[in-house]
Amino acid sequence: MKYGFAKRVYHMQSSAVRDILKVVNKGDVISFAGGLPDEKLFPVQEVRKAFDQALLSNPKVLQYGETEGIPALREMLCERMEKKDIFRNPENVLVTSGSQQAIDLFARVMFDPGDIILTENPTYLAALQVFQSYEANIVAVDSDEDGMLEEDLEEKIRHLKPKCIYVVPTYSNPGGKVWSLERRRKLLQLAKKYHTIIFEDDPYGDIQFDESDTVPPLASMDDNKYVVYTSTFSKTVVPAMRTGWIAGPYQIIRMMAQAKQATDLHTNSLTQHALVHLMKEFDLDAHIRTLCKSYKDRMLLMKDIFDSGDELDIHYTEPKGGMFFWVTMPEDVHTTALLKDAVSNGVAFVPGAPFYVSNPALNTMRLNFTNAEPEKIETGMRRLVQVMNRSAAGVVD
Amino acid sequence: MKYGFAKRVYHMQSSAVRDILKVVNKGDVISFAGGLPDEKLFPVQEVRKAFDQALLSNPKVLQYGETEGIPALREMLCERMEKKDIFRNPENVLVTSGSQQAIDLFARVMFDPGDIILTENPTYLAALQVFQSYEANIVAVDSDEDGMLEEDLEEKIRHLKPKCIYVVPTYSNPGGKVWSLERRRKLLQLAKKYHTIIFEDDPYGDIQFDESDTVPPLASMDDNKYVVYTSTFSKTVVPAMRTGWIAGPYQIIRMMAQAKQATDLHTNSLTQHALVHLMKEFDLDAHIRTLCKSYKDRMLLMKDIFDSGDELDIHYTEPKGGMFFWVTMPEDVHTTALLKDAVSNGVAFVPGAPFYVSNPALNTMRLNFTNAEPEKIETGMRRLVQVMNRSAAGVVD
Repeated sequence: MKYGFAKRVYHMQSSAVRDILKVVNKGDVISFAGGLPDEKLFPVQEVRKAFDQALLSNPKVLQYGETEGIPALREMLCERMEKKDIFRNPENVLVTSGSQQAIDLFARVMFDPGDIILTENPTYLAALQVFQSYEANIVAVDSDEDGMLEEDLEEKIRHLKPKCIYVVPTYSNPGGKVWSLERRRKLLQLAKKYHTIIFEDDPYGDIQFDESDTVPPLASMDDNKYVVYTSTFSKTVVPAMRTGWIAGPYQIIRMMAQAKQATDLHTNSLTQHALVHLMKEFDLDAHIRTLCKSYKDRMLLMKDIFDSGDELDIHYTEPKGGMFFWVTMPEDVHTTALLKDAVSNGVAFVPGAPFYVSNPALNTMRLNFTNAEPEKIETGMRRLVQVMNRSAAGVVD
Repeated sequence: MKYGFAKRVYHMQSSAVRDILKVVNKGDVISFAGGLPDEKLFPVQEVRKAFDQALLSNPKVLQYGETEGIPALREMLCERMEKKDIFRNPENVLVTSGSQQAIDLFARVMFDPGDIILTENPTYLAALQVFQSYEANIVAVDSDEDGMLEEDLEEKIRHLKPKCIYVVPTYSNPGGKVWSLERRRKLLQLAKKYHTIIFEDDPYGDIQFDESDTVPPLASMDDNKYVVYTSTFSKTVVPAMRTGWIAGPYQIIRMMAQAKQATDLHTNSLTQHALVHLMKEFDLDAHIRTLCKSYKDRMLLMKDIFDSGDELDIHYTEPKGGMFFWVTMPEDVHTTALLKDAVSNGVAFVPGAPFYVSNPALNTMRLNFTNAEPEKIETGMRRLVQVMNRSAAGVVD
């Protein structure tokens, strides 16, 4: 039987990354493809204790809960955000099923078909998927290592009247870059001037390799009017708990909560209670420092192997945090073709093209350095460098 | 600042029930308003053990998981469904964040603005909310205690060409009714004749008061073509875990999984692993029998108090399962007005009007009998009967 689907499904794309992961996860391939943290660094015993405490506290932790999130967690989130000088009032916070749901609910209450969204190029793939599914028009703004370029940004805001500017300003996915303070200020100035909402997606902000590098979140420069800010526990605690949050102007958060009611009633509240216990008893910030140290070491290892490679003709910027290395190869290399060769040689990455809104650079790739342990990174990188060298020499299997 | 929301938000309605619950949960009001199971019957120790086992098994249970749900849970769901002679293949199953998400994802991949959905009248409020948010047109089909009336159903299918027929055929919310075998067959016949999808929402099917009463699910009469079936662990295990599932033709399930990728990546997988451990070690069916016995006793208690009331002029059908009593009062009684009087006398219910698609019967109410313990039911019902009697006598505060 042929089923008549909604028109919007023809705007839905399966994630190229997820499709690649399905192939890669089979066999002895060392994968730098996914965006996974290392499960060996998960605070398993602390999570176990936290669930135990939550379950011993009161059977009500297993009952239906508030759509907005349990009050104790919303308060704790505010305490954490206050350290970054952003949202302090639980009323401005909605707990979501991962920050992916925050992007989806925001799009759901904001975008009509044809609405314009400005983004970086490349940018977070799964945000593009969401925006496309709501039939929005995504337009890329020219940018460099420091963020969007002011002139192009203002011109596009003025002419296209976007509903929203979506950015991952701190340790971006896939680029691994950090917006400068200057560019952040400019973006916010323009948002205010033209009354445009900024969606600040910040899943990686805490995964920082040098504490002296701190750049303030866009939300901290706003007066609770133009910036909607989302983050998650997926990178700092564990992904399986699917708990993120979004903070922003009350009217927007309230509308999103109403949409969430119809979407899934509320986020797993046992997990929310467990997170509250975890944050009470466990030094999450110390744990994050451990993660940062370990991930920085892996990034440096990856970098060293690139640098010591047989004069590889590649370009990259050293990531200052986050989970990804973004690599540009010579113009004639197509990384999608290279991936085939790489996988048959036991290593995987994600080609950069799917992350682009337009004009994809086919010679780019994203490498994750957080999931594999150092020894695996070493082996995998040697395999990759070999494949890259052969490609430069014009040898393809 | 005034924010420009998407047009669809003007089709979103906050749940009348949730809004009532906010008022009711304050103070000494005995509430029959919500649709909550009794937390005193939750298998807390077993859930605790299940989480412990899951967390001791492998840190990978805390990693990102498959969008479709973890394989072990999908297999177990098939084993359970097979007993009802429905879906046997994990490929046909998608694990969702509660069955509410199953309704939402189905609507998302199926409905364009203006599409017609046929429903019972009254029907499940939060399904109506979802359909409205996708700007679908909901049309009620005439029905009686046994289900939709064949003539009206066929006429509406023929003339309106609905995309889907949404039904809660077993212990419905709010009506508490069960479709007869005959009506089920008729519905399926018509769906086949006119190639129309049936969405069978079955959250209450296992909460059955007399095992000899079993009526087969619609899905069991289908050849895996026309029926999409959803259920949940919210009523049989606990709601806070937000784990439901949907089973149906592979093409539809695959499309929904793609939509879920963008929506929230995947359902909390630690919870899914815990559920697998729970079902291995715990006799869930025995637990469900205990629940059914306890809930039946409470339903009978409620019924007895109604029956022994001072010749109350009300109409109801004794529920054969589920969680709700649906009561019709004399035509001149408006239950919304009555609710005010009831709350100030320490008892709450939900007026029936919001559950209607059209022509709301303003003299109806829904009473939940599963959340309050017997003593509370007794006290609450005495208060309610008093308020009802006063209303019949024309006395209103």
